[in-house]
Amino acid sequence: MRARPNQDHETAAAAALSRVRERRPKVHCLTSPVALELSANALLAVGAVPSLTGHASGVRDFVAATDALVVNLGMLEPAREDAARVAAEAAHVLGRPWLLDPVKVELSEERLAFTRRLLVFGPAVVRGNSAEIAALGGEDPVRLAAAMPTVVARTGAEDLVTDGARHVAVANGSELMDRVTAVGCAASALAGAFLAVEPDPWAATVAALLVVGVAGEIAAERARGPGSFAVELLDVLYGLDEPALLERARAR
Amino acid sequence: MRARPNQDHETAAAAALSRVRERRPKVHCLTSPVALELSANALLAVGAVPSLTGHASGVRDFVAATDALVVNLGMLEPAREDAARVAAEAAHVLGRPWLLDPVKVELSEERLAFTRRLLVFGPAVVRGNSAEIAALGGEDPVRLAAAMPTVVARTGAEDLVTDGARHVAVANGSELMDRVTAVGCAASALAGAFLAVEPDPWAATVAALLVVGVAGEIAAERARGPGSFAVELLDVLYGLDEPALLERARAR
Amino acid sequence: MRARPNQDHETAAAAALSRVRERRPKVHCLTSPVALELSANALLAVGAVPSLTGHASGVRDFVAATDALVVNLGMLEPAREDAARVAAEAAHVLGRPWLLDPVKVELSEERLAFTRRLLVFGPAVVRGNSAEIAALGGEDPVRLAAAMPTVVARTGAEDLVTDGARHVAVANGSELMDRVTAVGCAASALAGAFLAVEPDPWAATVAALLVVGVAGEIAAERARGPGSFAVELLDVLYGLDEPALLERARAR
Repeated sequence: MRARPNQDHETAAAAALSRVRERRPKVHCLTSPVALELSANALLAVGAVPSLTGHASGVRDFVAATDALVVNLGMLEPAREDAARVAAEAAHVLGRPWLLDPVKVELSEERLAFTRRLLVFGPAVVRGNSAEIAALGGEDPVRLAAAMPTVVARTGAEDLVTDGARHVAVANGSELMDRVTAVGCAASALAGAFLAVEPDPWAATVAALLVVGVAGEIAAERARGPGSFAVELLDVLYGLDEPALLERARAR
Repeated sequence: MRARPNQDHETAAAAALSRVRERRPKVHCLTSPVALELSANALLAVGAVPSLTGHASGVRDFVAATDALVVNLGMLEPAREDAARVAAEAAHVLGRPWLLDPVKVELSEERLAFTRRLLVFGPAVVRGNSAEIAALGGEDPVRLAAAMPTVVARTGAEDLVTDGARHVAVANGSELMDRVTAVGCAASALAGAFLAVEPDPWAATVAALLVVGVAGEIAAERARGPGSFAVELLDVLYGLDEPALLERARAR
Repeated sequence: MRARPNQDHETAAAAALSRVRERRPKVHCLTSPVALELSANALLAVGAVPSLTGHASGVRDFVAATDALVVNLGMLEPAREDAARVAAEAAHVLGRPWLLDPVKVELSEERLAFTRRLLVFGPAVVRGNSAEIAALGGEDPVRLAAAMPTVVARTGAEDLVTDGARHVAVANGSELMDRVTAVGCAASALAGAFLAVEPDPWAATVAALLVVGVAGEIAAERARGPGSFAVELLDVLYGLDEPALLERARAR
């Protein structure tokens, strides 16, 4: 194993996954209605404990009781916008790491303006696809990450994770991940769990994307289509062991 | 079979499940967005007919057309709060049995206050985990049930169902039930179906928890993780037969 | 094959499915919260690209960017009512084909009145079960279709698709389709994808219902109950090939 260049990332990802399973961190997800179930089930599969309340009046209490926050802007509407602002500010004030997933921010000026307001509260990580990251000024994600500063994770056929100084590409995954709704949202939720147990948000994000990507690969091999893929993905996240993760992880 | 102490509960549960399948009761569920799909699918799997409309303006008509009501406070927000109040009052006035699932009531003073307002409308059953039941004053569930009066079902590794006079423990289930979101909510929804066909709410609740617990055990044996567990749970609820239920049920 | 009377419908359905897979049309679904995930996953399984934003303020942009619109009235509440009105008007003005699924319109005067307001915006297709179509004045669906004019698809054990002049019955499907929530809503979503690639809305609807019905039949043969049926349905939609479709389709 020593000969492989991504030994550090592989080993760190396996260690972080073990910590998630042992510590069972609480992760509060403010996410799209369509992503609620898969996000919660992905978190439960790795041993994390999700909460999902999305209304402004109660959300501060939930953030105070949580170890990490994930804010996903899919299907954004005014009530969740209010809740997201309150939750992000609470995470900022209380020192909880939080991740922003600016879903389809490229399609709407309103959503872009709202995203910029949330960025003031210092997310540890911003995760999006190339169109979303580009809409935030991240044609060059490394420069965006350095400027904010935050970790930027641009996911796609190959994921890029950078904090402006360090960067790594993750080449795991499967095309079936694009044939099931909210798999990206669930990956963001899982990254929240890793942020809760790994103080370096860059390392936490790399670990989460390696775990999701490897799990997606294994699930795709076992699946007959997107229906069974989604089922297998949760089973694999639940049972993924260190040897499989070390063998398959492709970070560089 | 006669030698076993829980013969009555087993037999009654099997009979109630048969009645659900024959009569196909309508159950209106006001539930958390994350619990909608699994709750509806669990009801459909046993032959009940769910409706889910959660807005105050139409909910009275739906309660009037239903055989039982389930009110679940997960992810509570103002519009569903209004609908829950209207629906609970309608069930009370119209004489429909209804079940209250006070999700995470221990985490918020607001939710506790709202739960107390709903209790005025006389739920047939209150189902929660130990923290939720304790928050309602049920450190001693038997006393709480007698005082309200209502059936209190405190679920966990072992479930307790009491109406203040009678009590029974249900020891079925699987740890995988805690690794899939909204399984408890789906159990509450199923209890609604049993309330619709069994006039004694204590017996209905015992029957529902036996059915869910046994189905969970069988599903866990067939599953490779939480993804396949959720799939198997619905298949088992659909196909569960009397011999399997009688053999596995552990009520005492 | 030539000897069979429904050769035209079979062949046209297979061709339309191929076009969906090649062109990957965008379909915007304004649908019930319980139907979001299955609708999105059914669309993704056949290669279409769903969007789901359900708030009035952003929905016009989403309709402008889409190839077809689906409006489903399940669990209707005021915010989605506003969005539905804006979206239907936008589809009308922009010339996007759109389908209306008037879920449970027979249960509420309010929903019926709202449905009538939407019909002004000229849906290409109205799909519902017999009670829903009857509530719109469609005891005789052929007459209703001619009067509006629109395609009327009345689904059930046997589906009827008519535009007032032409009509066809589709006899595929499985009883398990009624044991999984939102399968009908997902069928409506899929019909949206076919509307995007087939300019004749009657032919598009027949094709979509044949594909869904055949997929449901195959999935039911592979399933052990409603849980595995839902998984298989997505797998079959993803992998369904022309020979299976031609062999099983029963249109007349």
